[in-house]
Amino acid sequence: MTHVYIEDIADHVEKEVTLKGWLYNKTDKGKLRFLMIRDGTGMIQAVVFQKNVSPEVFQATDTLTQESSLVVTGKIKQEERAVGGFEMDVSHLEAMQVAETYPITPKEHGTSFLMDNRHLWLRSSRQHSIMRVRSEIIKACRDFLDDRGFILVDTPIITPAACEGTTTLFKIDYFDETAYLTQSGQLYNEAACMSVGKTYCFGPTFRAEKSKTRRHLMEFWMIEPEVAFADLDDIMNLAEEYLCTIVERVLTERREELKALERDFTLLEAVRAPFPRISYHDAFDILEKEGTQTPRGSDFGGTDETIVSAHFDRPVIVHRYPKTIKAFYMQPDSKDPELALCMDILAPEGYGEIIGGSQRIHDYDLLVERIQEHNLPMEAFQWYLDLRKYGSVPHSGFGMGVERVVAWICGIDHVRETIAFPRMLSRMYP
Amino acid sequence: MTHVYIEDIADHVEKEVTLKGWLYNKTDKGKLRFLMIRDGTGMIQAVVFQKNVSPEVFQATDTLTQESSLVVTGKIKQEERAVGGFEMDVSHLEAMQVAETYPITPKEHGTSFLMDNRHLWLRSSRQHSIMRVRSEIIKACRDFLDDRGFILVDTPIITPAACEGTTTLFKIDYFDETAYLTQSGQLYNEAACMSVGKTYCFGPTFRAEKSKTRRHLMEFWMIEPEVAFADLDDIMNLAEEYLCTIVERVLTERREELKALERDFTLLEAVRAPFPRISYHDAFDILEKEGTQTPRGSDFGGTDETIVSAHFDRPVIVHRYPKTIKAFYMQPDSKDPELALCMDILAPEGYGEIIGGSQRIHDYDLLVERIQEHNLPMEAFQWYLDLRKYGSVPHSGFGMGVERVVAWICGIDHVRETIAFPRMLSRMYP
Repeated sequence: MTHVYIEDIADHVEKEVTLKGWLYNKTDKGKLRFLMIRDGTGMIQAVVFQKNVSPEVFQATDTLTQESSLVVTGKIKQEERAVGGFEMDVSHLEAMQVAETYPITPKEHGTSFLMDNRHLWLRSSRQHSIMRVRSEIIKACRDFLDDRGFILVDTPIITPAACEGTTTLFKIDYFDETAYLTQSGQLYNEAACMSVGKTYCFGPTFRAEKSKTRRHLMEFWMIEPEVAFADLDDIMNLAEEYLCTIVERVLTERREELKALERDFTLLEAVRAPFPRISYHDAFDILEKEGTQTPRGSDFGGTDETIVSAHFDRPVIVHRYPKTIKAFYMQPDSKDPELALCMDILAPEGYGEIIGGSQRIHDYDLLVERIQEHNLPMEAFQWYLDLRKYGSVPHSGFGMGVERVVAWICGIDHVRETIAFPRMLSRMYP
Repeated sequence: MTHVYIEDIADHVEKEVTLKGWLYNKTDKGKLRFLMIRDGTGMIQAVVFQKNVSPEVFQATDTLTQESSLVVTGKIKQEERAVGGFEMDVSHLEAMQVAETYPITPKEHGTSFLMDNRHLWLRSSRQHSIMRVRSEIIKACRDFLDDRGFILVDTPIITPAACEGTTTLFKIDYFDETAYLTQSGQLYNEAACMSVGKTYCFGPTFRAEKSKTRRHLMEFWMIEPEVAFADLDDIMNLAEEYLCTIVERVLTERREELKALERDFTLLEAVRAPFPRISYHDAFDILEKEGTQTPRGSDFGGTDETIVSAHFDRPVIVHRYPKTIKAFYMQPDSKDPELALCMDILAPEGYGEIIGGSQRIHDYDLLVERIQEHNLPMEAFQWYLDLRKYGSVPHSGFGMGVERVVAWICGIDHVRETIAFPRMLSRMYP
């Protein structure tokens, strides 16, 4: 007798197998007990028919509570009407543990209660589906870059200098020194890409922002590719192909989970190249027609992003923002030095910015000038400046926040459901 | 004219292509200049023959310094005697930037100097090879688990409670609270595996240990699978197959890099299942014969690990340590409750412990008892205890430290070279 996983059940039709899992729910009908069992890989209905099992086993089914752990043996039948298309005729059943009254029931619970019980909430069908989609997205992200010869170079989490001001940094006691949690691996990526040509980092990043919005987490995962000899157009192309590949992969590999999340497939199927590419000023033309209050020249607010993205059925690339509202390291546009060679990608349906990238300054003197203009500590940038002394080349890259992409692809309102144990302004438990 | 990468050069024999890269070194021979060029994906010799290029280009080659950035055009020839088996006959060459005098030269440099210049040191052939092997190992780790239906569930970096004492934890200011950097995702993994059945986390972990050894970093990456319904034997089998797969993958995919590192392949080729499995007490029999000073009943020191592993030509699994020297959550052996159902895997050649794992306590009362025995704060474990109330099942997992595996597979003395930007007791720059 083999222990099989529900995801492999199609290979065992008309055979007797043993499953190990948890009771998701149960219905009684005379001499029949219908047990919905989950094992983490799928769900199956196990039918206990009184005449097929011992009296003890039949009686035992009546004591089973939600989330009780079980070992169930029986024959697998094809059954079109059942969840997943299969059903088990139970011949034997053993409860490993009859669970205490489970706190999460099909009734509505408040968010705070669910977050306090996040360690259990993860078992519910919706959260389970989100975790599986997230895992697939991350796999797709890595495969995409690995298949194209990118070398993963992990960048440090503990960083010495407050390169862009300390207001949104988490401080750490590093023995007798002060250190900070990283906000981005980009600067280190630039060093790595001069060694391996095409690199990426993928790790947790941190922002100590006192904002309580549905798009912000204090701890979130970011994937950041960086390419030597690439310009803005090159990385716009890369990012476009990248997003298309991820969406297609999830549509293929995680269709069942998207169904469980009641996601409208057609909206995701529209995500195909080419993406519209508009300049910052084009985007502002749209905003002004729609009556925005944001003055031209400043950064978009969340509502502005939603208005712009509502004009398109797929992600839209907005490029060439005023340099004054962007980071110090961005290469100026040779046609208009007041603009930075940068781009943001806004997700459709109001999910906001999911990718931000730019061409980086490769000229030593210009970079020094920018560091001074931004009143940044020159000392902290010595190693970064070295990259412009020894064989500097144009290079570009972008960063993609995983949680926002998960929210968009799954169609979730709030990023707190896109990661197993979210860290928010007022929450770091469990 | 296309820009091609050196790793794809075999597809362009007898064709004229453009390469972009950096000058690794240069030799002159009359009317010939031999430029060794690297582009991050490989190395190629570009031959500049005076009669094939303009006088300006030929003259320009004489100004080129180490690490100058270049765009080189020419025809690719098969050339058995050349590095990589190919050579370029240069027809045109353009220096993007003639580099300042490069601080790292083929002469010997001190470790401290090299670490201060880590952002540049990464470009040297040896460091470049290590980064590529590391990237492949990580890819192999993920593919192995993904292919077996494991779901990646990222566990938090910022954690609220000092679950196992605060002495080796890095403290963070989390708004008005104190938090700590994670030492392991395991406890959270246990929650996730009750949702998805087979899970893993893979992220940075932190130990504020005041130790300066060649095996310790303050920040290191760990991959931790966790499996519901698995016992100690199951995860010993999993870990064995896992290590064999990783080593085989690197031997196949990163052979050139291992050659550059002068690694003895035969030692890696011996890494095949089955691994020897010996109990803690068996291991101590070996140690006592070899005259160890460590008293039986305590944990092995680094030297003890080296002595034990020297008896085997492949990784050795040591299982069933005394529970007193192991973590509180480990399931006791039913045949001898003084022993824990745990295992460590020691790498060959004295590279020390690379994997540690165990079966976890699934009984609520026993777990409460252990938390009390270890004087741990019960309050912090409420959510963890919940996992034993609601459908508890036997489950097991292990953790593998990436840097030690990279050190072993590459044959490197010190873990500081196994990660791009190491964080050590006295170093967090660059």
